Amino acid sequence: MDYARPRTERPQVSVTEVGTRYGFQSEPELIPAAVKAEVIDGLIDAGIRHVEATSFVSPRAVPQLADAHETLSLLKHRDRACIHALAPNGRGAERALGAGVDEIVCFISASQTHNRANLNATIEESIARLDEVVSVVRGKAALRGAVACAFGCPFEGEVPVDAVLRIVEAYAQRGFTRLTFGDTTGMAVPPTVARLVEAARRRFPELPIALHFHNTRGVGLANVMVGLDLGIREYESSIAGLGGCPFAPGATGNVCTEDLVYLLEESGYDTGVDLAKLIAVAKRTEEVIGRALPGQVMKAGPRLRKYSPDGARRAVG
Amino acid sequence: MDYARPRTERPQVSVTEVGTRYGFQSEPELIPAAVKAEVIDGLIDAGIRHVEATSFVSPRAVPQLADAHETLSLLKHRDRACIHALAPNGRGAERALGAGVDEIVCFISASQTHNRANLNATIEESIARLDEVVSVVRGKAALRGAVACAFGCPFEGEVPVDAVLRIVEAYAQRGFTRLTFGDTTGMAVPPTVARLVEAARRRFPELPIALHFHNTRGVGLANVMVGLDLGIREYESSIAGLGGCPFAPGATGNVCTEDLVYLLEESGYDTGVDLAKLIAVAKRTEEVIGRALPGQVMKAGPRLRKYSPDGARRAVG
Repeated sequence: MDYARPRTERPQVSVTEVGTRYGFQSEPELIPAAVKAEVIDGLIDAGIRHVEATSFVSPRAVPQLADAHETLSLLKHRDRACIHALAPNGRGAERALGAGVDEIVCFISASQTHNRANLNATIEESIARLDEVVSVVRGKAALRGAVACAFGCPFEGEVPVDAVLRIVEAYAQRGFTRLTFGDTTGMAVPPTVARLVEAARRRFPELPIALHFHNTRGVGLANVMVGLDLGIREYESSIAGLGGCPFAPGATGNVCTEDLVYLLEESGYDTGVDLAKLIAVAKRTEEVIGRALPGQVMKAGPRLRKYSPDGARRAVG
Repeated sequence: MDYARPRTERPQVSVTEVGTRYGFQSEPELIPAAVKAEVIDGLIDAGIRHVEATSFVSPRAVPQLADAHETLSLLKHRDRACIHALAPNGRGAERALGAGVDEIVCFISASQTHNRANLNATIEESIARLDEVVSVVRGKAALRGAVACAFGCPFEGEVPVDAVLRIVEAYAQRGFTRLTFGDTTGMAVPPTVARLVEAARRRFPELPIALHFHNTRGVGLANVMVGLDLGIREYESSIAGLGGCPFAPGATGNVCTEDLVYLLEESGYDTGVDLAKLIAVAKRTEEVIGRALPGQVMKAGPRLRKYSPDGARRAVG
């Protein structure tokens, strides 16, 4: 690893915000579309250039995202960012295109049990549905293929690398040009990250890989360090650490965007993001959600924030 | 980095528990000595071999640790671990030796302002007090020198590497054989970790270095990844993530012991610790403290913990 990279050569790293889809979707209370749009606009204004803004799924299945079209129509800064949205089938893709989405994301789990539990379909059925999406999109938006449970499954345990690559192959054969490996329930650890990234690169060298880690077991940013060392330059994260793990009460969800940006910038990478503005959006998100969220930098402030010794509690060590 | 290290060659990494001193000291409520001893015994039984158990400071200044001698006398498993304790001066060192401490830890901050605020002394005065400790100890215990604010100061900002090395030199000249770099308020980031470790090794190649990171800005375990890559094999951490940052309400304190052990074991290092037992101690610590603590693995369980798909909430991604 090259930790002491000189500041004049800062490799760019792209941070995709997913809390606006993933996090808001998990909240029991409905959040008004205008509030969602305000948060997304704040993120774009802070310099985030990729936002997974919403999901075009059945409003009956996911009422939290029934306002997908409305949310996007309320954005003021959408021309300054690439807007991603999930579409599980042809109908969803049509709605996403109608709302002017730039990148359509499809999801398939590498674990059969998880795919059934999550999407109510076998992996084979999910792969077949990709054709619907592709035939609707026809080059009108970029296509990203995401693999859920890429680093392990909460029902099946270990997920073989080949099970992940089989889904990548289905995406590659259908013209998907972007790829995300999702650590759905926080099971990724350094060796599994290295193994999967290296195997995927060998077989699909033309496909750029984004990594989407969860901090469920506290090691999300340690896994990012592995990704960086392997040359991965695209990460997905969630503002303020919004979202959780459906199986572990109290455990955190996605890696937190402002903590990730802090790590990247301090490690000599260029994210294009203004951390102070990002922290303000994280605090606003906490206000919207109405409870403490797990982000740390939003509480502690930037690295060189100074305090007065007068008011400080004594603390040795 | 070598992430996919074969399981047959697992380098040993030592984890020193500091929550039993650092964390218990920060609690406003007094915790009975018997309860502290129970937690320490639990940690030793889980396989932790180094415990910074308490501090022999003035009982008036730190009433939470007035029971230092009693706590140690109540331990059942103390012969299975190396017991560390802080001693700020000769009187403290005498009391520590009287209680049978194996390793005496002295602290000096690399920041003048922090040293004054924290220890009510200039750095020069603190260095002079080392002589008192050394003349009391005379080989009856190991001596560890800790440098607080080694990666930055909340009052002064950046702390020059030379300011840290000056204190290391004072320790080395006085026969201290163990060294800890403390990231007191969570300002360490990968480049500062690499810079300090490399500079200290060049000047003091004979002194083994332990790293003590705080997770105040979420990057504690990312810094551990850097330490591992640089060959550091000794880390300090706090059970359940006990302890906090006196300046940042809601921010976490030390890196969490069970999350650290999880990362190390999953990355192919041998800590000698039983994670299931450690999680049980973390839960007991949470009970003792009476509020939710930041540890993640204690909430989510080990990596391959399996769940039933029946009760699971649906969550895409």
